[in-house]
Amino acid sequence: MTDLLIQNCLVLRIPNRTTAIVDEGQDILIRGNRITAIQPTGLADPSHFRETIDASGLLAMPGLINTHAHVPMVLFRGLAEDVPLDRWFNEYIWPLEHNLQPGDVGLGMELGLAELIRGGVTTVADHYFNMHEAAAAVEKSGARAVLGWAIFGTGGEEALDNSVQFCQQWQGAADGRITTLLAPHAPYTCPDDFLRMVAAAARETDLNIHIHAAETLDQTRASVEKTGRTPIQILEDTGLLDRPTIVAHACGATDDDIAILAKHGASVAHCPKTYLKLGMELTRVTAMHAAGVHVGLGSDGAVSNNTLNILEAMRLLALLQKDRAHTAEVMPVAEALYTATRGGAYALGMGDELGALEPGFLADIALLDLSGLHHQPLHNPAASLVYNADTHDVHTVVINGKVVMRRKRVLNIDVTDVLERARRSMTRLSQRDPAQRIQTYAP
Amino acid sequence: MTDLLIQNCLVLRIPNRTTAIVDEGQDILIRGNRITAIQPTGLADPSHFRETIDASGLLAMPGLINTHAHVPMVLFRGLAEDVPLDRWFNEYIWPLEHNLQPGDVGLGMELGLAELIRGGVTTVADHYFNMHEAAAAVEKSGARAVLGWAIFGTGGEEALDNSVQFCQQWQGAADGRITTLLAPHAPYTCPDDFLRMVAAAARETDLNIHIHAAETLDQTRASVEKTGRTPIQILEDTGLLDRPTIVAHACGATDDDIAILAKHGASVAHCPKTYLKLGMELTRVTAMHAAGVHVGLGSDGAVSNNTLNILEAMRLLALLQKDRAHTAEVMPVAEALYTATRGGAYALGMGDELGALEPGFLADIALLDLSGLHHQPLHNPAASLVYNADTHDVHTVVINGKVVMRRKRVLNIDVTDVLERARRSMTRLSQRDPAQRIQTYAP
Repeated sequence: MTDLLIQNCLVLRIPNRTTAIVDEGQDILIRGNRITAIQPTGLADPSHFRETIDASGLLAMPGLINTHAHVPMVLFRGLAEDVPLDRWFNEYIWPLEHNLQPGDVGLGMELGLAELIRGGVTTVADHYFNMHEAAAAVEKSGARAVLGWAIFGTGGEEALDNSVQFCQQWQGAADGRITTLLAPHAPYTCPDDFLRMVAAAARETDLNIHIHAAETLDQTRASVEKTGRTPIQILEDTGLLDRPTIVAHACGATDDDIAILAKHGASVAHCPKTYLKLGMELTRVTAMHAAGVHVGLGSDGAVSNNTLNILEAMRLLALLQKDRAHTAEVMPVAEALYTATRGGAYALGMGDELGALEPGFLADIALLDLSGLHHQPLHNPAASLVYNADTHDVHTVVINGKVVMRRKRVLNIDVTDVLERARRSMTRLSQRDPAQRIQTYAP
Repeated sequence: MTDLLIQNCLVLRIPNRTTAIVDEGQDILIRGNRITAIQPTGLADPSHFRETIDASGLLAMPGLINTHAHVPMVLFRGLAEDVPLDRWFNEYIWPLEHNLQPGDVGLGMELGLAELIRGGVTTVADHYFNMHEAAAAVEKSGARAVLGWAIFGTGGEEALDNSVQFCQQWQGAADGRITTLLAPHAPYTCPDDFLRMVAAAARETDLNIHIHAAETLDQTRASVEKTGRTPIQILEDTGLLDRPTIVAHACGATDDDIAILAKHGASVAHCPKTYLKLGMELTRVTAMHAAGVHVGLGSDGAVSNNTLNILEAMRLLALLQKDRAHTAEVMPVAEALYTATRGGAYALGMGDELGALEPGFLADIALLDLSGLHHQPLHNPAASLVYNADTHDVHTVVINGKVVMRRKRVLNIDVTDVLERARRSMTRLSQRDPAQRIQTYAP
């Protein structure tokens, strides 16, 4: 008895960064949490399966991967509009985060996970606080997540110990859907000694790292002025890059920095909407791909983005790398699709079992309905995913072999209740007292 | 007896380019095709109205305005991906357009109008061929449109005469929803003599102009090299700018060109997704606003865009003007909303009666449902329209006082039939023989 049969769909295959193929009339066979076969429809006997999904007219793609988010920040959505990065931190985000109370992160995580699943995202790397609440929400939702408890130098050894404890408690939890790692905030909020301590702890406990660095060229310049080293050089110097590391943003990475990232096998999370909205530079994804650095897409938090929409991030990736190169041939359809799926999986260190619809891979699948007016007539389904698709096209989502959204209804989260609770907390969460901020931005 | 009462909605008001206000608990009263009053809900007696819409929980905004499109090109959607502008024209678009047969433009227009209405767009300025078919589709759909029959210098006087005839036949048709104008293609496909002839015809017949010009800096440079004048100077020289003119794109406009546009009261249609996708420059919207040039948003055709989504164009406007200025404070929420509505109306010469929810204005209204996960909790509805909204949030659309989409169902177009006919034409329409192109791009 096999568990799940997805019948008669189009299947998007991305064998490498330059090829995207859409096969018609396919069945996807799933046993436990893995894909066992993808084959022409009609060969499998539905009565041999515990569950079948008639996916006629739907397109199956690998679940989208969000390699950098602060999911619970959906609670603050819309509270920091059109302000530059220094004021964004010092007058908005860090004062707002002073409002967080027990229960808020769990609530925000449930709300954000519902939005992610609704938009076809099956894995999210989240970097935030009170992560026991976040992990409990992930367990409940059915999503896959890579979780790190954000720590600052000001938290010292105690903060690090707590975050290691969190990692050890939740590593491999939720049927293997949860992976944990260490999440120092950034070189500009974590002095070298603290980063060295984090690196030592990571080596001892065999944990990976997720950190912000070189978010802007200004940060790179300020770092060189103050320390003689770029933020990426600091990551190398302090030993962080000796462990597999996800570097969020790296918009201010120099050519030498990209070579350092490549040498250590570090990966980069690219969150283009945040960069545009805050007037930052863009991650040089094309150059990083050329250097062999794995790049995944991220939403960042919803106070900069303002949503958790990875389809939009994929579209912006394709459009903006063309813009920067001043040519339409850069970041074509296949490379954009690769980055949103396989690139993300490699960035999270799971490229050999996640991010592709192939036998043996984890069964994380988004089924999209491309019958909407904005896709029709459908001359080119792969291009339509990159340039036309929106979250409402996502019809059904499978994670780890289990259906978590069916016909646009998220199954494991009580969305009505979560929305009502979020609404009740709005007034309390939107207070801002810049004197009460949790950190100060002064890179 | 008044005709339509929209009850108990949020109302977006944009009194000027720097202010966007959302009033809660409002009724919108409509008589014939105009808004007569907007007032706190409860004051109007529903029994005095022919029709009421319970808009509780919905947000009313002015219908979005698309100031530059080639709507029937939806038929070619997805057929020219990731290719540079010269190949895009010579190997894809102009060979594809050789396939157009009687009936195709009407079909594409119906399909595209359904997509536009579905996305909250109530007015579209369309620049294409076989425009009798397009006008008939507009009449049927209930949309408002500004229609011009695209002509090239190769068509000579006969093409111009036909297009003038088209304009005279359809001017003010469909209860005033159709406006017509002359639509020479571009300075690089229309020699000066031809443009002078168009300008003379426009003066004689009191018609406005809609033309592509200065699409890229390369075009501007090539024009200066060949003729000693920029494309915008050619528009001035040949007398076109003596009539109200919509200039599509103007990405390659110099500072002097912007001053010329301002002097003549010409307006600009900004289609940001096309520019990114084709690796072009961007219209300098902020500089044009500062110079007093009216700018509206456009989708361009779906072979560059690949959709007709003006909410996305508004989002890209806000994000990309920030990007170019390298600061988050440029093109804030209010200015983006203004450009998508009032700016577009002014660009089309209708700013005193279109593009705002105010008494006396034409009743073109999009009602949006912002209850989706990607908006919640809704701290800032105006920002959510710019940074979060997608076409599926559009719930009900009113144009010229008539409901044309109710609860996400487009009323006047048989979408199922149109989609079926579009699918049947796909193979024929996707043939490409570069030798059979309708024009050659060599600016």
